[in-house]
Amino acid sequence: MEILITNDDGWGAKGIMTLVRIMETFGHVTVVAPGTVQSGKSNAITFDHLLLHEIERTDNHVVYTTNGTPSDCVKLAIHIIYKGQKPDLLVSGINHGSNAAINVIYSGTMGAVFVGAENGIRSIGFSLDSYDPDADFSHFEPYIVQIVNEVLKGTLNFKLSNQAATLNSKLSTLNSKDNYGLCWNVNAPVGEIKGVRITRQCQGYWDEEVATIEDEEGGVYYKLGGQFCNSEPDAEDTDEWALHHGYIAITPSTIDTTHLIYYV
Amino acid sequence: MEILITNDDGWGAKGIMTLVRIMETFGHVTVVAPGTVQSGKSNAITFDHLLLHEIERTDNHVVYTTNGTPSDCVKLAIHIIYKGQKPDLLVSGINHGSNAAINVIYSGTMGAVFVGAENGIRSIGFSLDSYDPDADFSHFEPYIVQIVNEVLKGTLNFKLSNQAATLNSKLSTLNSKDNYGLCWNVNAPVGEIKGVRITRQCQGYWDEEVATIEDEEGGVYYKLGGQFCNSEPDAEDTDEWALHHGYIAITPSTIDTTHLIYYV
Repeated sequence: MEILITNDDGWGAKGIMTLVRIMETFGHVTVVAPGTVQSGKSNAITFDHLLLHEIERTDNHVVYTTNGTPSDCVKLAIHIIYKGQKPDLLVSGINHGSNAAINVIYSGTMGAVFVGAENGIRSIGFSLDSYDPDADFSHFEPYIVQIVNEVLKGTLNFKLSNQAATLNSKLSTLNSKDNYGLCWNVNAPVGEIKGVRITRQCQGYWDEEVATIEDEEGGVYYKLGGQFCNSEPDAEDTDEWALHHGYIAITPSTIDTTHLIYYV
Repeated sequence: MEILITNDDGWGAKGIMTLVRIMETFGHVTVVAPGTVQSGKSNAITFDHLLLHEIERTDNHVVYTTNGTPSDCVKLAIHIIYKGQKPDLLVSGINHGSNAAINVIYSGTMGAVFVGAENGIRSIGFSLDSYDPDADFSHFEPYIVQIVNEVLKGTLNFKLSNQAATLNSKLSTLNSKDNYGLCWNVNAPVGEIKGVRITRQCQGYWDEEVATIEDEEGGVYYKLGGQFCNSEPDAEDTDEWALHHGYIAITPSTIDTTHLIYYV
């Protein structure tokens, strides 16, 4: 089995190193990762002057870095490394920081997953709810193995909620038109994990605090910051609720931006 | 009425100049646009060193440019210019190039629209299916006026298809939870316009051609190119079908990336 790995924290981040080690137990790993931090790059693409360098090769993996975004990494992998062939699986992360709720639309980690989905590749993004560059991923590892196994089987047979049973029955009857763009956004809490929940993207927004900063020459520039504001803190079926109650949140995600009101 | 305008082709593009002229008939216009081309920037955001300069002020409009992405433009507008208040409407474009089908996930024009939707602002992206920097937008203009009027009224009462009637009845009964993240992706063909259709995002993918280019020093770099491959060319309810049959495509769009299989 051939597995493509990328991320947005760049090659060398603890999260991607952890993911490579886990995925080598499934098959041969090709890493195409940004050479520098590409957080918040969403699905941005670079039209020109993309570079690609092989920097490491073992029996189990080969590593390339690029000057591009996570989305560029997937496109370069498919067209330059795989020569138009597709890997059997794309995994992105493990991101240092949550990609639950509205974070997903800004996320480079999930941007790569969406390019995978566009190309019909089974694609999963893994994120941990901690920005700590030395974060502990060990509690997440057995769940990553289980989730990858389930996605490869095309099911999600976790012993958990009714949601999962319902989702499994849907997955088993989906035709290719109905599962267009299907991919997975997996977010884990820090600390003890109580279980896994199938979730939807929580409604909410970033309550921005744009800092105004004066530089040494008296010029002014701005710096984005702030915090997520959950518009439905009591809803128990969201990724945010799961994450903040000790559960791993698995959100079936899509590249179809058509609003639900069109379909229902 | 206060209207925020942005784009991804940068201030000075013919498309945004056209949109400013149209929107001045609705109210006061604030433009916050990139100073340079930001096509393909999706929802990318810049965490630091954002600049914002007022470059033009008349009775009807004020123009700021930034070094940031389209998403940054909306965040700077809300927090620095409007001081946390919201405009009554956000319009992005008119983009030089289609944002139908999978283009939407890479589009800076639609990235700005999604940030507007995140912030609860009525937001519309307008795009023309032509990359020509001197494209003719005149046939599109009366439709833009009509679409803006309908979105402001919260309806889409075009004399057109059953889809629109159905959508209108849905829109009239939506509660705030059900219309979370609702925004509009409007794409127009070049040449004669036969009418308007309410559409969904067409299934398909970019059939990439990544060119390998040797530079003067013998180094190699890569350049993304290619063309959209429509996976359902016969489906008449898609944005692609509408666009290629002479209709304006209005796709109700969303920032909720949860896959439809979760909801249905």
